[in-house]
Amino acid sequence: MHKYSLDCIFIPDSINCGRRPLKINVAIIGASGYSGAELIRILSQHRCVTMRKVFANTSAGKRVDEVYPLFQKRIGLTFEQYSVDAVDGVDLVFVALPSGDAMNIVPSLLQKGKRVIDLGGDFRLKEVSLYEKYYKRNHVAKEYLAESVYGLPEVNRELIAKANLIANPGCYPTSALLSLIPVLKHRVISPTHIIIDSLSGVSGAGRNASLGLSFVEVNESVRAYKVGLHQHTPEINSVLEEVTGGEVRLTFVPHLIPISRGIYTTIYAELRDETSEHDTLQVFESYYADAPFVRIMKSGIPEIKNVVNTNYCDIGVRVDLDNRCLIIMSVIDNLVKGAAGQAVQNMNIMFGFPEEEGLLS
Amino acid sequence: MHKYSLDCIFIPDSINCGRRPLKINVAIIGASGYSGAELIRILSQHRCVTMRKVFANTSAGKRVDEVYPLFQKRIGLTFEQYSVDAVDGVDLVFVALPSGDAMNIVPSLLQKGKRVIDLGGDFRLKEVSLYEKYYKRNHVAKEYLAESVYGLPEVNRELIAKANLIANPGCYPTSALLSLIPVLKHRVISPTHIIIDSLSGVSGAGRNASLGLSFVEVNESVRAYKVGLHQHTPEINSVLEEVTGGEVRLTFVPHLIPISRGIYTTIYAELRDETSEHDTLQVFESYYADAPFVRIMKSGIPEIKNVVNTNYCDIGVRVDLDNRCLIIMSVIDNLVKGAAGQAVQNMNIMFGFPEEEGLLS
Amino acid sequence: MHKYSLDCIFIPDSINCGRRPLKINVAIIGASGYSGAELIRILSQHRCVTMRKVFANTSAGKRVDEVYPLFQKRIGLTFEQYSVDAVDGVDLVFVALPSGDAMNIVPSLLQKGKRVIDLGGDFRLKEVSLYEKYYKRNHVAKEYLAESVYGLPEVNRELIAKANLIANPGCYPTSALLSLIPVLKHRVISPTHIIIDSLSGVSGAGRNASLGLSFVEVNESVRAYKVGLHQHTPEINSVLEEVTGGEVRLTFVPHLIPISRGIYTTIYAELRDETSEHDTLQVFESYYADAPFVRIMKSGIPEIKNVVNTNYCDIGVRVDLDNRCLIIMSVIDNLVKGAAGQAVQNMNIMFGFPEEEGLLS
Amino acid sequence: MHKYSLDCIFIPDSINCGRRPLKINVAIIGASGYSGAELIRILSQHRCVTMRKVFANTSAGKRVDEVYPLFQKRIGLTFEQYSVDAVDGVDLVFVALPSGDAMNIVPSLLQKGKRVIDLGGDFRLKEVSLYEKYYKRNHVAKEYLAESVYGLPEVNRELIAKANLIANPGCYPTSALLSLIPVLKHRVISPTHIIIDSLSGVSGAGRNASLGLSFVEVNESVRAYKVGLHQHTPEINSVLEEVTGGEVRLTFVPHLIPISRGIYTTIYAELRDETSEHDTLQVFESYYADAPFVRIMKSGIPEIKNVVNTNYCDIGVRVDLDNRCLIIMSVIDNLVKGAAGQAVQNMNIMFGFPEEEGLLS
Repeated sequence: MHKYSLDCIFIPDSINCGRRPLKINVAIIGASGYSGAELIRILSQHRCVTMRKVFANTSAGKRVDEVYPLFQKRIGLTFEQYSVDAVDGVDLVFVALPSGDAMNIVPSLLQKGKRVIDLGGDFRLKEVSLYEKYYKRNHVAKEYLAESVYGLPEVNRELIAKANLIANPGCYPTSALLSLIPVLKHRVISPTHIIIDSLSGVSGAGRNASLGLSFVEVNESVRAYKVGLHQHTPEINSVLEEVTGGEVRLTFVPHLIPISRGIYTTIYAELRDETSEHDTLQVFESYYADAPFVRIMKSGIPEIKNVVNTNYCDIGVRVDLDNRCLIIMSVIDNLVKGAAGQAVQNMNIMFGFPEEEGLLS
Repeated sequence: MHKYSLDCIFIPDSINCGRRPLKINVAIIGASGYSGAELIRILSQHRCVTMRKVFANTSAGKRVDEVYPLFQKRIGLTFEQYSVDAVDGVDLVFVALPSGDAMNIVPSLLQKGKRVIDLGGDFRLKEVSLYEKYYKRNHVAKEYLAESVYGLPEVNRELIAKANLIANPGCYPTSALLSLIPVLKHRVISPTHIIIDSLSGVSGAGRNASLGLSFVEVNESVRAYKVGLHQHTPEINSVLEEVTGGEVRLTFVPHLIPISRGIYTTIYAELRDETSEHDTLQVFESYYADAPFVRIMKSGIPEIKNVVNTNYCDIGVRVDLDNRCLIIMSVIDNLVKGAAGQAVQNMNIMFGFPEEEGLLS
Repeated sequence: MHKYSLDCIFIPDSINCGRRPLKINVAIIGASGYSGAELIRILSQHRCVTMRKVFANTSAGKRVDEVYPLFQKRIGLTFEQYSVDAVDGVDLVFVALPSGDAMNIVPSLLQKGKRVIDLGGDFRLKEVSLYEKYYKRNHVAKEYLAESVYGLPEVNRELIAKANLIANPGCYPTSALLSLIPVLKHRVISPTHIIIDSLSGVSGAGRNASLGLSFVEVNESVRAYKVGLHQHTPEINSVLEEVTGGEVRLTFVPHLIPISRGIYTTIYAELRDETSEHDTLQVFESYYADAPFVRIMKSGIPEIKNVVNTNYCDIGVRVDLDNRCLIIMSVIDNLVKGAAGQAVQNMNIMFGFPEEEGLLS
Repeated sequence: MHKYSLDCIFIPDSINCGRRPLKINVAIIGASGYSGAELIRILSQHRCVTMRKVFANTSAGKRVDEVYPLFQKRIGLTFEQYSVDAVDGVDLVFVALPSGDAMNIVPSLLQKGKRVIDLGGDFRLKEVSLYEKYYKRNHVAKEYLAESVYGLPEVNRELIAKANLIANPGCYPTSALLSLIPVLKHRVISPTHIIIDSLSGVSGAGRNASLGLSFVEVNESVRAYKVGLHQHTPEINSVLEEVTGGEVRLTFVPHLIPISRGIYTTIYAELRDETSEHDTLQVFESYYADAPFVRIMKSGIPEIKNVVNTNYCDIGVRVDLDNRCLIIMSVIDNLVKGAAGQAVQNMNIMFGFPEEEGLLS
């Protein structure tokens, strides 16, 4: 019916310009969870990528559009059983496995010369003791912690470009770190007594059959969970300490709220000196001048609905001078900027693609 | 702190008036599911009932308020392992087990002289072959089918008063039957080509760890299910045939929608003769003149929110004369009028309590 | 059909026992908003009250069940235009008007000898300057501020019993104050640097046609609002200062979340000394030993679903010793314990009724 | 930061190939409603379009990203007051005004030689009397009804390609027509006694401050509305009659359900002859073999979540042979395939762009 395909019109062979390979081959391991499916969705629209393989052991042998009917007519792939040999010919592997599983697989991928983006928590903490305390298991690939790069592009863009192993940030840390780093670096706030109060949509808990995540249990309710014990606490803390070079003390409380996607983080921090909202917003504006996916809200107040299904992190600020308290609010889509979108943003940086490619819609 | 308790004020010993026992003892088997918990909630406020035992094998040994923290300070009972001896001293047993389990337990209860209200489907269908077709198992207590009374008080009030075994109606059948019986009996509509299109909140599927019932899968979506195969189809059909004495033909399609509680049923039926909304509403008004829990909506259109947490069934009507089509809409709370509330209404009738007792709030 | 009514069975004339009038007459002004409707619902089940009049100027002349079809067959009253003469014969008046309107009406009611419970904000702040700053209008009934009693029963039970004018607490303050008073009075936490982060269901914003409250704008989103400017900030602050006798400094940030009812408040405060969760919970347990509507959660974590449609306030606690931070979480139903239910609880205390009457369901 | 933009990489000037203009200029009138905003979102990603003007009288002078903060950093345009002169230089005008407003504006646009896609109802019904009956106003541009083309691409692709005035279908009709046309044309079902039962998300009602659309009124509820009176009834009916060349009789009942986006339509029709699901699905498969945005569900059951934010219409089928009833279920996103997406699909056809351009994400 159509005389020419989108591809032939918009991506002629001549586009390469001698500067980089037009397309890379990628694979996803753990492709049937929510982050994996979001990766499939984003990558299927990415003009510089061919998805070669999608691995998902529990769904192996099923077509992707059988598990996710939303992909009917869109994705022709079939989930496969993973084996290390099956990734031959692939340039980049996304690992979207539960934390604890990735560390068993990543070393062999790196040894085969693959570049890897791990969406889980296994390579985010440089200190093994913190990993073992919060994840409650031994780390079996400690020797790779040193080379892993924390994939927060707004902070580590140069390191990401050269990395072979990216530890893609957690969803809560993404919203918290983007909110805190500019004002900590500019010494607007004190590095102690920081309160991080976060609300998360239910997809953040993954795709599981669980009574606690069932509609009736979650709907019309809210509950805090893992108060003071969440594994993202040391992730936020250690990245902040690395970025600022000093000690940071924070309390982090996540809550589950009845939405599918999105994180709302409200941060309370002590101002070092009197300041204004205008000046604080300027700190953020200038810090993120080159960041395509961070937006400083003109209204001062971000809302989750503005970022759902996008890779943006929106940030707003209020100053409570009476109590010398800076209130920072930020929102992301936990599956996009908090997972799959950020992973693709990292890929774009690693391979010299435009940073927004595949991430505007 | 309080000088006198509610009980001492509102239910003095002298209340009996020689007409009936003031209080009966009841037990619930299968008390930890949603219908069971709703029974506990309603019965705890019922002034003629003492809850003696709550059985729930998977939660046995746990306090009720541990499984359902909403009952903290309200219910001091502990879930127990069921055994037939444990119901000695109980006048009435509510069985809130999944269909298929009740038929193994009910016979021994009846043999011990207990009156029983079964909230599941095991004793609703008089024809064993229908049971075995739709429930996909053999019936092991067929000999009790004849004596069971279908517990729809608006139709069977007299039989219920004398019954020892009540088959409490299904949630969909309750909304469908209350909508159809008056206009079928008064020959307003033809008994064939009846379309029953129902929407149900998620609690109708029970309290299960199931991916298909998880918040993310259900929220912001709708799906039809068991189209033409739902076990409530023969229940609706056979009750209608019994009530009207003739053949009835209907198509029933249930849908899952993202609310916790409530059923919306829209029925399409062929008018035998021209009629008006006013006259049709009159048929309903007069049929339900004595029914405390059926309301004919003045606006013509019922809404789920008006019946949530209540035992009401609200009914509205529209006439499409161009197509000789009567449209009947009805709503209930699936856990109250569609389950636990109707069970208590049946109990009130069985024991001569006021029909509304425990069911107004 | 029923041979005897519930009333004749459960409340015989002889119940009075010479101790108090069996029933009082009440009226509601502003009865058509959400708090007003909730009052109607609760009072209709209250065994010591006769609702004589429901005033609602914009709905005057309409039956209650026309505006709220959920009351069909339950409430036979018609909304009336308010005039001061129309409350003759009434013992108690509930004023459920928007803040700013009550102060124009309450003085004349008090002058007529009526006892009054005002659900709005006009009589909560003793300092006129605070009222005028946060409510942005002049106060026209300042002379009544001194005699008004802040209607938080868990703190002011004795004063409430004798009061003629009750300022019923705001929804956020109810959850915040019940969480903070025990630990401030027992000097568990420091009175400064208190962070109060609250989430509210949408009914808290009242029954209005407003784009910002429309389903599409609120659903699947979250937004903070009135950050640092909310009129409940000085209410919380001044009650805490009155109760503790010292200065209190706090930052309060409310958020709107997509649920109909409920408030989740998470409080962050500095521990004065090392302590344990167990000891802190003991402080709460003993402070609320006699309070029928405060529950200290055994699990440590409250959830909104446990209090929806109830008058309970559930409280949980976590200790973050590393940061000397006490985290207190509390939940209420904003329309019940946060408005109409608490008003009825106050009425019960004022008239010597059992404190729970009408509030268990 | 980026060395080359997406545009320079993916759409080189040489792309034209002499076959068609690379880009057209478009304007949107009524751009601040939900359909307008969705048009802005889609068109901003469309590689063959430049959005020149966005008109919205009530928001004139405001930046698009002030009214819709989700567009911050994405859309630099400002809403303007509409005047016919302001569309000079524009090739195509999208009119996203409420029905009744478009007919005042469209004639002058056509007279200036602009091609027009009207998303409202003013040009969908060929019979003026039907328009005046259901829309309850006079039609002031009757002379353009004859030339308007009903913009359902799966049916009218050739006519659309040449049209100057497209009447973009209503949301309900889109889901109903795509479900019915194949089986009516192939005489699988009888053209009378058709029942169309639809459920719609709240965005279908537009962006209004309305109590009836407020979160609290809609959440956890369902209500039928405009039963038998909805203006989409004659639209569905007359298109079906035009397509089949015979009389069609149908009853249509829409319901409002608590989701933001999406329509679920369940259709009940009488089978002419015995058939199977397999054969019926084949009818659909072959009818839509060339339609990129219609998907016949392998599972037989469509779900709204699979089409949200997409331009797909998913269709499933069940056969109830006992009652000779064909049940067809279809889902769309009311703002995409039911409004803005379908409008862009029409534009793509009108200007020879690939039909999917801008509509895959």
